[in-house]
Amino acid sequence: MRMTDLIEKKRDGLSLSQEEINWMIAGYTAGSIPDYQMSAMCMAILLRGMGDREVLDLTMAMLHSGEVLDLSPIAGIKADKHSTGGVGDKTSLVLCPMVAACGLKIAKMSGRGLGHTGGTIDKLESIPGFSTALTEEQFFDNVNRHGIAIMGQTADLAPADRKLYALRDVTGTVPSIPLIVSSIMSKKLASGADVIVLDVKCGDGSFMKTPEQAEVLADSLTRIGRLAGKKCAAIITDMDQPLGFAVGNALEVREAVQVLSGQEQGDLLKLCLVLGSCMLTEAGSAASREEAEQMLLDAVTSGRALAKLAEMVSAQGGDASVIYHPELLPSAPVQWELPCDQNGVIARIHAENVGLVSMKLGGGRATKEDVIDPAVGVVLHHKVGDSVAKGESLATVHAPDESHAHEALEALRACFDISEGPVTRPPFIHKIL
Amino acid sequence: MRMTDLIEKKRDGLSLSQEEINWMIAGYTAGSIPDYQMSAMCMAILLRGMGDREVLDLTMAMLHSGEVLDLSPIAGIKADKHSTGGVGDKTSLVLCPMVAACGLKIAKMSGRGLGHTGGTIDKLESIPGFSTALTEEQFFDNVNRHGIAIMGQTADLAPADRKLYALRDVTGTVPSIPLIVSSIMSKKLASGADVIVLDVKCGDGSFMKTPEQAEVLADSLTRIGRLAGKKCAAIITDMDQPLGFAVGNALEVREAVQVLSGQEQGDLLKLCLVLGSCMLTEAGSAASREEAEQMLLDAVTSGRALAKLAEMVSAQGGDASVIYHPELLPSAPVQWELPCDQNGVIARIHAENVGLVSMKLGGGRATKEDVIDPAVGVVLHHKVGDSVAKGESLATVHAPDESHAHEALEALRACFDISEGPVTRPPFIHKIL
Repeated sequence: MRMTDLIEKKRDGLSLSQEEINWMIAGYTAGSIPDYQMSAMCMAILLRGMGDREVLDLTMAMLHSGEVLDLSPIAGIKADKHSTGGVGDKTSLVLCPMVAACGLKIAKMSGRGLGHTGGTIDKLESIPGFSTALTEEQFFDNVNRHGIAIMGQTADLAPADRKLYALRDVTGTVPSIPLIVSSIMSKKLASGADVIVLDVKCGDGSFMKTPEQAEVLADSLTRIGRLAGKKCAAIITDMDQPLGFAVGNALEVREAVQVLSGQEQGDLLKLCLVLGSCMLTEAGSAASREEAEQMLLDAVTSGRALAKLAEMVSAQGGDASVIYHPELLPSAPVQWELPCDQNGVIARIHAENVGLVSMKLGGGRATKEDVIDPAVGVVLHHKVGDSVAKGESLATVHAPDESHAHEALEALRACFDISEGPVTRPPFIHKIL
Repeated sequence: MRMTDLIEKKRDGLSLSQEEINWMIAGYTAGSIPDYQMSAMCMAILLRGMGDREVLDLTMAMLHSGEVLDLSPIAGIKADKHSTGGVGDKTSLVLCPMVAACGLKIAKMSGRGLGHTGGTIDKLESIPGFSTALTEEQFFDNVNRHGIAIMGQTADLAPADRKLYALRDVTGTVPSIPLIVSSIMSKKLASGADVIVLDVKCGDGSFMKTPEQAEVLADSLTRIGRLAGKKCAAIITDMDQPLGFAVGNALEVREAVQVLSGQEQGDLLKLCLVLGSCMLTEAGSAASREEAEQMLLDAVTSGRALAKLAEMVSAQGGDASVIYHPELLPSAPVQWELPCDQNGVIARIHAENVGLVSMKLGGGRATKEDVIDPAVGVVLHHKVGDSVAKGESLATVHAPDESHAHEALEALRACFDISEGPVTRPPFIHKIL
């Protein structure tokens, strides 16, 4: 087989066979197919597309390029979720304890953050003592005992995807549905869960600018997941503003606690109820999404969901008292308010830039080597559509020092658009597939 | 500027600016833009296309990546031709003396052959003593004195194209009209002629499979040539069988002599008359193509065209007596006939495979380092549409030894399709633009 022939086939709009796709991914992972051929192939795939069978073959080839977790030592139905990435997205911290409290098993491998979005592992590590470095045995054991464990990725899951993603990132070939789907699904399938729900973001800060584009992606993700033998659901949510209010590691843990204890109702809770109800119905634990939502709300109001989070924290060596006393979490020495400079209605909060403000405060990484400050970040006090008065605080900046705080306030001010006229609150959940 | 942004622009079907194209070609030539980004760009160009302005900018950027010959020391109108490549294509050996005999100046830089097609330089070097390694001063001087000189490429013409072509060759991005046009025209413009005629081949052995595809290419080549301020014409010719009869270096020189001395009439003469008449009319040396053809035929029948070839050979150190006594050219020790095994009509002669037979006999290079045997090759005795009888010779193999001859006969037999029914002779010249 010659890579040039495969590139020409895809260039001319033909389908690649399973054998060809396997050969290509094995060769690229091993280094016998050079980057310059793979990038031409990625561009051909982006512009010519792939059929479902090809996307499935590509997904499976990337899945089998590395380790595949076998979760069979864990009794019960294992559920996992994936988000295409958002600012202030602490969904896993809320959703996982909620569904674990309803009986599903959560054995989740999570990543660290890079750029304007944070990672679940970074957020959890702001809890004193909490360890995400479990052995596989501890991981399985914790899930069997407590129904939930979240660890950092240690296994070499889908190395082909890692190499391919780095190439796509610098060759204009990221926004291709077949490439996005195979990238996401190869990693999710390698993580071994039975039920996978996908949160596909759309809006300015996402690859998918419109709900229609996001639906094409969500549709393909679920189709491929089901073809691979998994229970799968997807929802399409808006990402034109940060999710919830807090952006920053300890600040997001605190917000998760507030949601799990019923103190905060809003887009974050709503998202977790929808994602969780998809999980429970796909798993067969509830007959309808309405029934599933009621189960999840009961877990919150009864305190079982918050207790499940505390149980996981404890089991992973963390100080569970912070879950009941979040004021014990690391806090930043300088906390400044951003006053609103006019009366009006918030028309827009630029999510990506808010993420960058938090990153520059020390809450995220510009490069992989950066060390994170768990205490810093931004807490918004309003969402798009809220009326605000001149002088009222729009947000609080949590900074390591006054110089950082000053810079952050300047940048944060530009993230808000205040309108004089009325503003329609954007729909948050566009569709459930 | 970032290459990723440029790739994304082209991927999305937008036009690249002149500044962007210049930056890209300069960066790629200098090595600051890696192959894996350039190959993704080439695939995006292939699938999204380019407008005339972009193709012209790309051509000029590649032209200015290296030396540009200044032919102003040569008095008169300088003419050049380019062929997209064919088997048995000794057109330059016939055409150049013909038009030089009609008063145009031929200052031609030619290449060596690789694979199934031979190079003009290799063919000329089969003439004992002939040197293609002239200094620029000798080259100009010869053209001023004799009206004609053909030398090997010494100047570093369009190095960007050389690097880019090597990349396109292994990334499925050769058959893109904008990339082919900028590749051909950057080199032709760097060679400095005032009049450029292009012989665009179509058929099985070419990039352009149909006359319609070839016309799109020819049309773009002439448009870009004219936009760059040159007199330009193109013709579309058939490449389903070898051009003329001989394939091999000395064998092709002998055939050129036969055509120039009026002993052979056929597709090769016809092609040279059409190309030559385009050159003479574009140069303003003739009022019509009919008048120009008559001038060229006069040059042949009067012996002036053949004398011009002998004059050039002499001026470049070659033994001019071989032009009048081609039996003095190197000849192969083993000359075997290929007998026809049935009565019928020749339906097809597979050009590319005939070229490969000659290459394997030692007449061409499989790799750049191979040394050429000037004497070997194949001489066909028939063309498509000819009736042949069982036992009649279809071709003569000129081989260095019996083992090569045996192998060549076997392979050559498979190049001929003999049909029982009547065969329409394919049109040879499809169109003149």
